[in-house]
Amino acid sequence: MTDQPSEGPSQPAGEPADFTRVRRLPELQSTDVADLHDVLDSALVAHVGLVMDGRPFVLPMAYARDGDRVLLHGSTGSRLFLALRDGAEVCFSVTVLDGLVLARSAFESSMGYRSAMVFGSCVPVEGEARLRAFERLTERLLPGRWADVRQPNAKELAATAMLELPLSSWSVKISSDDPADSPEDLHTDYWAGTVPLLRMWGEPVPAEDLKAGVPIPDYIAKWRHGGA
Amino acid sequence: MTDQPSEGPSQPAGEPADFTRVRRLPELQSTDVADLHDVLDSALVAHVGLVMDGRPFVLPMAYARDGDRVLLHGSTGSRLFLALRDGAEVCFSVTVLDGLVLARSAFESSMGYRSAMVFGSCVPVEGEARLRAFERLTERLLPGRWADVRQPNAKELAATAMLELPLSSWSVKISSDDPADSPEDLHTDYWAGTVPLLRMWGEPVPAEDLKAGVPIPDYIAKWRHGGA
Repeated sequence: MTDQPSEGPSQPAGEPADFTRVRRLPELQSTDVADLHDVLDSALVAHVGLVMDGRPFVLPMAYARDGDRVLLHGSTGSRLFLALRDGAEVCFSVTVLDGLVLARSAFESSMGYRSAMVFGSCVPVEGEARLRAFERLTERLLPGRWADVRQPNAKELAATAMLELPLSSWSVKISSDDPADSPEDLHTDYWAGTVPLLRMWGEPVPAEDLKAGVPIPDYIAKWRHGGA
Repeated sequence: MTDQPSEGPSQPAGEPADFTRVRRLPELQSTDVADLHDVLDSALVAHVGLVMDGRPFVLPMAYARDGDRVLLHGSTGSRLFLALRDGAEVCFSVTVLDGLVLARSAFESSMGYRSAMVFGSCVPVEGEARLRAFERLTERLLPGRWADVRQPNAKELAATAMLELPLSSWSVKISSDDPADSPEDLHTDYWAGTVPLLRMWGEPVPAEDLKAGVPIPDYIAKWRHGGA
């Protein structure tokens, strides 16, 4: 299969450093910041790469885009999270798999996907801005919930490290095309096309210890399908 | 939110190196290889971290588990893929988001997820084994397709670098519990529970240049829901 999401990073907008220059399938690249926002707003979990003791680590992390930054949070009990807090260089990667692309040849079969990489270092969110960041994260992951949840107290805020990563150096690739079969394969009788991958929220499941009579909140029914 | 997938790697099975020791939420760890296989078999895209010129990179890649290894493929035109082929140390990360966990407090709200990290270096698949690896990848991503597709010719095989990563050093974390609210929050009237995230395949969309009369293959209807 060709044209899977592994083809490497693209030219970031705003920072044409050589290490992110497009080398593979540059025609899939987008430099439109609206596409970056679309990818980041279509998933809930990012894979954050960093180097520690010379080794690569990739952490799955919940995140929220907030304007031209992404917000991340974690526990100060996590060594890797502390490295993020202390400014380790990161590759923040989000991939949305939209479907499978069946070409007549195994070689040309591929995936429909949208992927983003953001390069840079995180900065701690401090002071009054922390509660606002907590709100933004909660509302992004659980829309409508902030007004219907016990908000964090001072102790909980202190136990949560909140980080922001600016969206200044990034690359986006979008692959949404039909299969690209060789001309000599077009006459074959193999089916060709795409099979979309759909995501949706299932029926809410109440906690076993839920107080009797508390109904499922209305806002959950308005959630968009989630990403991975 | 606590207990998101960012809590760091767990103790790998078979290689208790210090850099992967559980530090956060060790109770979520599994050392059962069946759980590792379950996570790897529940998604189609991995995020592969490596270090290049001292910087972290995270590549989304299609993959297939094949027994006690994962198979990866890519183009020799990709610099990052060449680094993988040449044995760069990797952190191979797969995360399946199963749902959102709504606690009465924002602080205890979290995610249901299954995540795996595999540490090691890739080795090229050579010779006769390459076609078999191509088949395994195709069948894993597109079950039933290998017998109904033009299989790769010698030129296509030569253009595809096929790699394997042994499942020898790994960690798995599974979070599937109810919200863990503080006792003093249990009496509140906030709803608590989980909202599952479902994935399913949509209706196949024929390619615009599909030969008239070629039906949608039956095997697509048997595909399990996919992961990202």
